[in-house]
Order: sequence, then C-alpha cells, then structure tokens
Amino acid sequence: MVSKNQIKLITALQQKKFRQANELFFAEGAKVIGELLQSDFELYHLYETADVFPEVSASIKSRISESELNKISALSTANNCLAVFKIPKQKPLVEKGLIVALDDIRDPGNLGTILRLCDWFGVEQLVCSPETVDIFNPKVVQATMGSIARVSIHYIDLKPILENTKLPVFGTFMDGKNIYSEKLPPEGIVIFGNEANGISYEIEQTVKNRIAIPRFGKLQQTESLNVATATAIVLSEFRRS
Amino acid sequence: MVSKNQIKLITALQQKKFRQANELFFAEGAKVIGELLQSDFELYHLYETADVFPEVSASIKSRISESELNKISALSTANNCLAVFKIPKQKPLVEKGLIVALDDIRDPGNLGTILRLCDWFGVEQLVCSPETVDIFNPKVVQATMGSIARVSIHYIDLKPILENTKLPVFGTFMDGKNIYSEKLPPEGIVIFGNEANGISYEIEQTVKNRIAIPRFGKLQQTESLNVATATAIVLSEFRRS
Repeated sequence: MVSKNQIKLITALQQKKFRQANELFFAEGAKVIGELLQSDFELYHLYETADVFPEVSASIKSRISESELNKISALSTANNCLAVFKIPKQKPLVEKGLIVALDDIRDPGNLGTILRLCDWFGVEQLVCSPETVDIFNPKVVQATMGSIARVSIHYIDLKPILENTKLPVFGTFMDGKNIYSEKLPPEGIVIFGNEANGISYEIEQTVKNRIAIPRFGKLQQTESLNVATATAIVLSEFRRS
Repeated sequence: MVSKNQIKLITALQQKKFRQANELFFAEGAKVIGELLQSDFELYHLYETADVFPEVSASIKSRISESELNKISALSTANNCLAVFKIPKQKPLVEKGLIVALDDIRDPGNLGTILRLCDWFGVEQLVCSPETVDIFNPKVVQATMGSIARVSIHYIDLKPILENTKLPVFGTFMDGKNIYSEKLPPEGIVIFGNEANGISYEIEQTVKNRIAIPRFGKLQQTESLNVATATAIVLSEFRRS
C-alpha cells in the first residue's frame, strides 16, 4: 500500500526545490533503476506494480497499482516501477582527464544525451553552471539511460574553475580552428554553451583553445549544430586521437 | 480573417493521412518559414499575427489572432506565423555522393536532428524506409530548423535500393570495424537503424561494410548511443577523411 504522504512526496520531487529540501530524487523503469541499484546511489524507497527487483529488501519497497503509478509518474506512459534515491553529496572536482563543462544548458533531453556521451567516451566528470537544468530533474534522469550512475556531476560556478585550472580549456566557436586538423590532448576541459546563446561572453574569456566543427553543406546556411550532436562530434575527436 | 474551413484544414494536416490526401504540410515560426520561402517549396497560404513576411503577396496570406494561432499550432507555445506549403513531388534518387538511409526511425526529434546533420555535412539525399516517421510531421518540420529546404528526401523500400546499388553500403554494429581506423570513401550509403531494435535483419544482409564507434567508458556498460548522436559521429568521420 502506498500512503498519501508517499504520493505527496514523490509528486513534490518533480520540483527542484523539493528535491533539494529532501535530498531525494526519483527514477523510473527497470533499466535506469537497475543501473542505479548497481551503483553507489542509495535507495530510499522502491515502488513496483510487480516483482521487478526481488533482491530489494521488503522493508524499503511497496506494491503500487498501475493507476497510482500513472498518477505520480513523470512519464507520459508510466513504467512498472519507480524508485526514490538519495541525492549523493557532491564530490570535489579532480583536475584530471577529460572534463566536460556546460554553460547554461536548459533542455533536459540535451543534458541527458550529453551525460550518455560522457559515459560512452570515458569522461568521468561533468561540470555544470548553476543555471544548467538540474541533473535530478526526472526528464534528465530518464534521458541518461542509467549513465547518471557512472559520471560524477558537479554544479559549480564555471568561471573560477576555468580561470585557475592547469588543464587546457577548449570551446567551440564558428571562428575556431578546424577540429579535424588540431592535435587534441588526452586531458582538458571542453565547454559547451547554451542552446540559444552559445558560450557566454564571461566564460568565453577563459577559453584559450577555440575550435570549430567544419561545415560541408553546399549552401552553408545551417546556423549551428544542436549542442548534443556537437558534443558527440567533439568528444569523438578528442578520443580518436 | 481566418475561416472555419482554413482552421479545419490546418488541424487536419497534423495527421499524415490528411497531409497525403491534400499534398500539403505546415511549418511554424519565422526561421523555418523563411528558409522554406527561399527554397523550391511552394507556399500555399501564410498566417501571421503581425507583418512578418511583407514580401509575400496579400492574396496568399491572412492575419490571424494570437488565440486562433495557438489553437491550430502544433507547438506548446505558438509562434507569430504558420505557413502551409505544398508537398513537393518526390525526385528520383541519384546514386551519387554520400547518402544516408534510415531503417524505421520513429522519433520526430531524431529525424529532424538527422536531417540537420545531413545538411551540415553536405549529405544531399536522405532515404527513409516507409515505416520511418513522416518528414512532414509538424514536429519533424520544426526540429529540422529549415534544413528540410536543402536536403532531398525519399521514402522508398530500402532493400531493393541497397541490393542493387553500385555504391558501398555501410552500417553501424557493435561488432563492426573501428570507424577511426577505416578508410572511408567520399561516396556511399550509410544506414542507421530503429531506436529500439537497430538495423533490421533483412537490411543487415545488404551491409558489406560493418563499422563501429568504439566505447571508451571504463565500465563499458552503456548499451548504445542515441541514433542522432551516432549519426553525428559517423558523418563527421566520413567527411573528415
């Protein structure tokens, strides 16, 4: 049985302020929940319409009806399980390896896709400006497809980090150097900017290495690539070399 | 003034069967409409809340109120203009250059992003299996950001094309050859598969060149890249070489 208070809590967790106040977030579906259960994330409570995770102790799980699950789900079609996890304490950023920094990414789908790309390309740390969409937003959690369990995420002011780092700082700009002919290092911080405005002026000042993805279209009219596809191409270039 | 019949027509054009029956589709917003007006697409009728396109003849445009536009819009927040265009006759496929083939892509956002990538990387022809989401779906039209005006799109059975082409046929598979070490030609057909199932068995038989995007994550648990990000990386590799 699911109590009214439990339903109230989960519904509240759709909003950032309640996630922060309770230090909790939720994930849906066997794939994402399964990956979180195998990671360092700590389960707070699991709700299942059937016995999806028999390994989870009965003391922290409840049966839920399909109609109740549909009511609290953030998805248009609810899955067969929903799990509330504790938001982990943010680890200190370690200036090592390839790091991705996001300057005010607003779209949950883009953030989720970028996190998946970090996971694929072995980027172990993702740094987000405070204005970037919350990684524990249910839509982002869903779009990460479980990668959220394997990449360390840091919300922090980008400027002091970028000004003081010993790592080389990269950013993509239309007038940057052709990424295909640059020698890219195994370590560095690569910045991607907001969907509408790109990298902000303040952050641009910290970029020593301006790179560009060349265009090949005959008409040269396409203004820009979507930020998630640009991230895919840039991370691929860093790793292939 | 906008008549009831005009509103009825536009609302109907949200559905594929009515788009096909009327040979019409619609686009929204100054950016996308502007690019279509500059292309070979033929304008059927323009609706504006203000004078967005003064160059369009008064005989094929109408003023519309914001509330009316909101009613017929396919967007969550309507723009200041909506235009109905004629669906062009499908051109014959020319076996030349780099061609992208899609095997049952279902998500409108993915199709729109892939079309934008084709435009960016100078892929002039996109071939879609009949089960692929309709390119004239309003969500796809919006996601293309105007690229729909510059890439020729063909809905056709993939199998006979792929079996009979003189061009080399490529497809991405987990067990394919490392794309970073392959010599990729300037001409060829590259297939991308359905979001859930990948390239179908029938189509897989026509692929002579199996390629793979290597994973770099320590844990090697990410199952696959999103099809649009995979397209970004593969097209970038074809063009860089």
